[in-house]
Amino acid sequence: MDKTALFKLSSGLYIVSATDGEHTGACVINTALQVTSEPLQLAVTVNKKNYTCGVIKEAGHFTLTVLSQKADMPLIGRFGFKSSRDFNKFDGIETETSSMFDPYTLEGACALIVCATVQTVDVGTHLMFIGEMTDAEVLSDDKPLTYEYYHSVLKGKTPPKASSYIAGADPTKVTKVADKANMHHFRCTVCGYVYETPATVLPKDFKCPICGFGPDKFEQID
Amino acid sequence: MDKTALFKLSSGLYIVSATDGEHTGACVINTALQVTSEPLQLAVTVNKKNYTCGVIKEAGHFTLTVLSQKADMPLIGRFGFKSSRDFNKFDGIETETSSMFDPYTLEGACALIVCATVQTVDVGTHLMFIGEMTDAEVLSDDKPLTYEYYHSVLKGKTPPKASSYIAGADPTKVTKVADKANMHHFRCTVCGYVYETPATVLPKDFKCPICGFGPDKFEQID
Repeated sequence: MDKTALFKLSSGLYIVSATDGEHTGACVINTALQVTSEPLQLAVTVNKKNYTCGVIKEAGHFTLTVLSQKADMPLIGRFGFKSSRDFNKFDGIETETSSMFDPYTLEGACALIVCATVQTVDVGTHLMFIGEMTDAEVLSDDKPLTYEYYHSVLKGKTPPKASSYIAGADPTKVTKVADKANMHHFRCTVCGYVYETPATVLPKDFKCPICGFGPDKFEQID
Repeated sequence: MDKTALFKLSSGLYIVSATDGEHTGACVINTALQVTSEPLQLAVTVNKKNYTCGVIKEAGHFTLTVLSQKADMPLIGRFGFKSSRDFNKFDGIETETSSMFDPYTLEGACALIVCATVQTVDVGTHLMFIGEMTDAEVLSDDKPLTYEYYHSVLKGKTPPKASSYIAGADPTKVTKVADKANMHHFRCTVCGYVYETPATVLPKDFKCPICGFGPDKFEQID
């Protein structure tokens, strides 16, 4: 069984967010799908360990922000590699409110889809929320960010809680560029950020600009 | 509510096939998704009106063929715009058998994923089959065919039974090329095939090379 066959499945990258009035959760997912057209229904799948999963369950609705190719790693790192348990991910960034009162950001977004949950399916480690679309908006003409683009161009990593995480199989590859032969690359094992430097070690006080972890979380690629 | 926001969701294009020993079904879907990694589970969503839906339900397993950019319109037309009720779609093409005995073709394929159904979810017009992956194989290095590529490069159409069909909103657009200014284009309203000709009418005995319908099913684009 060659698990890397799963890397051939295509998907986008999204932020799913919700608030139940008291709690607010938002996280990055690649598991959003239109399942029917009459009525318009979408499915999103979220790890039960994610704070956002509990908030969506409690709220009974969710807002899906479709990320565009303009979404940068700091934005993806904020929503994808940190927990809403620890801080409000919308703090300090421009935030709008959807028609279900869920927060979302226009930053790096190309579309917005708002859903009222009509069915929750337990799929083991994750819950799948099937929602009827109640509102939708195109936010920009920017191209949607695909998971393939995230891996191949942004050099992003898949966190262990993601549906598509496969231990030991990493779709991330750094392409060596000829004129950069003397540069070395260090990859953050937490978020996938790649740091380029002529040095062969990272300074002790170096911190990942995305997730904030130090040099002990970095692995040298070349 | 702007339904075209749904065109910003990314997905691939697949053939899902199954046999229950007596009946064989296969159809094109764009609704395949990895939902968990422990265990490896996938979800596929199929219209209840599709013959293949009943076969998967009966069989208790399904085989997913990930289409590559080498998949051509005749292949997609055969599996996506005709019914397994009327003929065996594998007749006359090179067919392999998966470890669950489901037929599949290597033509235009880049990966194979075989699943045993563990849960069936009724989502209205469609059934969602959640399956545990029992086998997987990479078939070629060709790039997966995304739904976006199907629409923008292959000029493919979305059939009314598809999850992502939106009446009146057509993601298919034909880009006019300057040196083809004197050519006219006719699009098959059944399968989306575009025929280029200097003539302003189609011959009466013209037949769509993909789905076989005549000139009355064609609309002139320009």
